[in-house]
Amino acid sequence: MEKRAYNFSPGPAMLPLPALEEAQRDLLALPGVGISILEISHRSKSFAAIIEQAEANLRKLLRIPEGYHVVFFQGGALLQFGMVAMNFLRGTGKSADYVVSGSWGKKAMDEAATQGQVRPAWDGKAENFARMPEEDELQVDPTAAYLHMTSNETIQGIQVRLTPNAGEVPLVCDASSDFLSRPVPVEKYAVLYACAQKNAGPAGVTVVILRDDMLQKCPKDLPSLVSYRVMAEGKSLFNTPPVFAVYMVKLVTDWLLGTVGGLEKMNEINRRKAQMLYEAIDRSQGFYRGHAEPWSRSLMNVTFRLPDAPLEEQFLKEAHQRGLAELKGHRSVGGCRASIYNAMPEEGVKTLRDLMLEFCDKHR
Amino acid sequence: MEKRAYNFSPGPAMLPLPALEEAQRDLLALPGVGISILEISHRSKSFAAIIEQAEANLRKLLRIPEGYHVVFFQGGALLQFGMVAMNFLRGTGKSADYVVSGSWGKKAMDEAATQGQVRPAWDGKAENFARMPEEDELQVDPTAAYLHMTSNETIQGIQVRLTPNAGEVPLVCDASSDFLSRPVPVEKYAVLYACAQKNAGPAGVTVVILRDDMLQKCPKDLPSLVSYRVMAEGKSLFNTPPVFAVYMVKLVTDWLLGTVGGLEKMNEINRRKAQMLYEAIDRSQGFYRGHAEPWSRSLMNVTFRLPDAPLEEQFLKEAHQRGLAELKGHRSVGGCRASIYNAMPEEGVKTLRDLMLEFCDKHR
Repeated sequence: MEKRAYNFSPGPAMLPLPALEEAQRDLLALPGVGISILEISHRSKSFAAIIEQAEANLRKLLRIPEGYHVVFFQGGALLQFGMVAMNFLRGTGKSADYVVSGSWGKKAMDEAATQGQVRPAWDGKAENFARMPEEDELQVDPTAAYLHMTSNETIQGIQVRLTPNAGEVPLVCDASSDFLSRPVPVEKYAVLYACAQKNAGPAGVTVVILRDDMLQKCPKDLPSLVSYRVMAEGKSLFNTPPVFAVYMVKLVTDWLLGTVGGLEKMNEINRRKAQMLYEAIDRSQGFYRGHAEPWSRSLMNVTFRLPDAPLEEQFLKEAHQRGLAELKGHRSVGGCRASIYNAMPEEGVKTLRDLMLEFCDKHR
Repeated sequence: MEKRAYNFSPGPAMLPLPALEEAQRDLLALPGVGISILEISHRSKSFAAIIEQAEANLRKLLRIPEGYHVVFFQGGALLQFGMVAMNFLRGTGKSADYVVSGSWGKKAMDEAATQGQVRPAWDGKAENFARMPEEDELQVDPTAAYLHMTSNETIQGIQVRLTPNAGEVPLVCDASSDFLSRPVPVEKYAVLYACAQKNAGPAGVTVVILRDDMLQKCPKDLPSLVSYRVMAEGKSLFNTPPVFAVYMVKLVTDWLLGTVGGLEKMNEINRRKAQMLYEAIDRSQGFYRGHAEPWSRSLMNVTFRLPDAPLEEQFLKEAHQRGLAELKGHRSVGGCRASIYNAMPEEGVKTLRDLMLEFCDKHR
């Protein structure tokens, strides 16, 4: 068999091997069904059982309270950026507040601006998006249509620690890149959404968790696929869902519930993994420079620079030789980025940490 | 190995076995890459080669002329129903013409009605959607924003033979359920789109072929994911595409070009398959009654009724026992429906035909 690399890509990203193995085993025909998951009717009993289990797994893992819908969409977070504004901003006469915490928070606000008035409740640009806002820095307009936040900025490698207090303003969260990596107080959110391709499955499906009362706000003059109301009332089956991607979400959440043992356990593992790399940065006496302020450091995306560009290139080359892939940072931040989502094995992180220590010793 | 059923589902539907086998073989890691297609970065060279090949295959199979974009979307035909109207109807002050040829043509018009004025250029409802319009029946408004048609009505089992003449009015076609089943004169269309889950791949990706001049018409106040201009200019990579589904489109189109030998060949095979079933209907002396008028019969979805409901139930039961799955008709038409897309083997159609002949002999 082809040797599998440790893939540090920011997303699509590594999936748990048991989930991949089960998908591979059954790819020509689901057991007892005789039809591939790639061919099966979304109206079949077999698929109904799969999508219901995927939802039940998510509800259990995240302890989603009564009164919330869980809906599977296509279109990634980008569609959600637009849908949030089409459903909850356009035509309201209100303005929407955005926490501009990094590249994705900014992007979400720009997409919403096509549909109505938007306003930054905080903007980290002047500080080069190196940290999340502190609680008292958020200036929330109490009449805002909603407050939108990004729980983890994949590109900059910063992550919120606490859910901000938005008062009566509905809180909307793009949780794409730390979804299912730790417990979340879902009851504090009006809408929480995440594309799957970091922690929940392959690219092609997006999970949206939304409070029932938000559905009443959706305007009637929207095409069905961009209406939260229509898609929620259709229980993700108003049209053909991305069947295979939903199946993978089921397999990944099976793994989280079974092998891992839940999100508290997953969080512990993620803390251990991130700590290995941040310690390597902190003990390097400035050889590695992290992008994020320590208290805003992401457990998912570890961003750091080396002393100069030739050393960075050399480092990436040696990483590649050790089977460590996709460590190049985003062009807007530069340097290196190690994305260490749920499915990245601790062994992969250790291999990277060891390389960091050796490389530092050699070149410092 | 699990025995594979002959799956007559209207979609998602059967895929070519060689495509499934290749996907299965490489599911844990693409050869020479060490990363699964379910995990690979959409910005990687490996995926760039895959998506470029998928597009090149489509261009070759359909002989797509210069001056057309080929774009991979998520969201199925339902998103296209909305996008066509959001991009080309809303704000134009014009009305859009729709050929209401069946359930899907009607649905497309209803979705567009959320965005502006729509008008049926022909409506087959009074005739129970049993045929497509003849050329001289279409009443096209020469000032219409566009004329929308459905090349094959999956639920009723009717299919157009010739592309209608829309004059100067841009012709938009939902080709979801006969895409890649036969050659198409792409140059006659302004926009031609198809969800993949009939003939082109699994659910989760939609192919849109659109003439360059249409991009100029897209308004600026649309969120990116629903703007044809943004998504076409981004070459399907403005955001993360449904990587695995695009890969499957590549494998399926590899099979069409290689094993099958192109769309003329595919069309011949499809004609043979459909003829087997329509002959069984026509020679049954009224035991089987087709829904479609003979000259509008679909080569993709063969719809027919038996003398009464208990016989239909009995027929479906015996079909199931022979490994023939998903033959129940849509509730709005009733009876049986055999969807015989590209990947349904001739052997599967023969097995069904033989059952039809035997069942008729026994119960007539």
